Amino acid sequence: MSKRRPLSPLPRLRARGDSVEVDRVELTDLTPALLPYLGQVAYLQLVVFESLSRLISAAADLNEKAMLSETAGTVLTKQQGFVAEIRRAGEDPAEVMGPFTDAIDEFEKLTRGKDWAERLTSIYLTMGLLDDFFLRLSGGLPGDVGPRAAALLGADSRDDVIIEILQRAIAHDPRLASRLAMWGRRLVGDTLLMARSALHVTGDRKSDESRIEPVFTELIAAHTRRMDALGLTA
Amino acid sequence: MSKRRPLSPLPRLRARGDSVEVDRVELTDLTPALLPYLGQVAYLQLVVFESLSRLISAAADLNEKAMLSETAGTVLTKQQGFVAEIRRAGEDPAEVMGPFTDAIDEFEKLTRGKDWAERLTSIYLTMGLLDDFFLRLSGGLPGDVGPRAAALLGADSRDDVIIEILQRAIAHDPRLASRLAMWGRRLVGDTLLMARSALHVTGDRKSDESRIEPVFTELIAAHTRRMDALGLTA
Repeated sequence: MSKRRPLSPLPRLRARGDSVEVDRVELTDLTPALLPYLGQVAYLQLVVFESLSRLISAAADLNEKAMLSETAGTVLTKQQGFVAEIRRAGEDPAEVMGPFTDAIDEFEKLTRGKDWAERLTSIYLTMGLLDDFFLRLSGGLPGDVGPRAAALLGADSRDDVIIEILQRAIAHDPRLASRLAMWGRRLVGDTLLMARSALHVTGDRKSDESRIEPVFTELIAAHTRRMDALGLTA
Repeated sequence: MSKRRPLSPLPRLRARGDSVEVDRVELTDLTPALLPYLGQVAYLQLVVFESLSRLISAAADLNEKAMLSETAGTVLTKQQGFVAEIRRAGEDPAEVMGPFTDAIDEFEKLTRGKDWAERLTSIYLTMGLLDDFFLRLSGGLPGDVGPRAAALLGADSRDDVIIEILQRAIAHDPRLASRLAMWGRRLVGDTLLMARSALHVTGDRKSDESRIEPVFTELIAAHTRRMDALGLTA
């Protein structure tokens, strides 16, 4: 958790536009079960959308409302894309998402934060890490779902908007920096646990820790870069 | 308000896809001031989006959440389109929306409804009427903004989703029909007042009541068709 930024340049975390970068450690030798994968991602996006909507409602600043609504739009696009994949698989979205609502709601509560700035930081960091995680996992999906899932998860999610708002808040109140840094460090643990449990739920028995570990190391490095973007020490 | 559906077929209220029907009474001889027009529409969409988000959060049914998130996506697309128009005009969205927040917030409170079904009915009816109104007003906008505004407001707003959910709720609890019918009748008055005040704010001195009246008659007829779609008597 106290890992510093590596000295060597790292690939950009998130491709802009529709192209998805592939120079990352993938989990392609894992073959996640399709429906648990889709159900978890679809419900996670729904929860992120709801959290973001609450922040938009609570935002005092009209410009921040308008800015965050762009981020909310990208989350909705992802959410609808995964719901469409569930329907394409001939299944009912509610039934496929249903088994994961308790665990994900619990995760959301645990990582929610106690004020506006912490909540926005949570969305930025947990959504970033989990999208990244599910993107790495998408290569092993059956049929042609993988590339579509990767395109949805790899699309620009307008993090720039969140970063700008949080940087501004930190500049306005420098004490916020240490509080959010601490909060970010706490979040990474819970979020990695969520990812790990998602991996077990998608039920690949071939997965062993030695193969998964490098991916988690990369997820942590990407988390550190997200913290850096806010000017915070991870 | 107690107007019955006319016997002759009426043009479809809302074009599907990107095409916008033009066989309607337009307000093209009015020339609304650009920024008040954009500011009001952008803020209205933001308020509708926030209301819809609250309903998504409060929805007990996962399928309804997923369905309504599609509607929320269309509202966001409109909202972002109008924010983009404000930026294109070289102005700051928050400054342009700012003067209208009090009146529109007040309107939202007045038309909010006291439970989930009333709230969803409000979104459907008030958004429908006001989008329709601003669409008719768009022809008089300066430059090439008009056609773009019309395309945004005339795009499919996934009312079908709201209609389906409300029809289901009414089928489940038939007493809801009379309560929502009464609520819909109350809403039309407040919403027409909002439209009328928007017309004055956009500040066209040429506008006189005799020219505006046929448009309001059409807005009421369209409202009646929306009520009909729910199986309610307007």
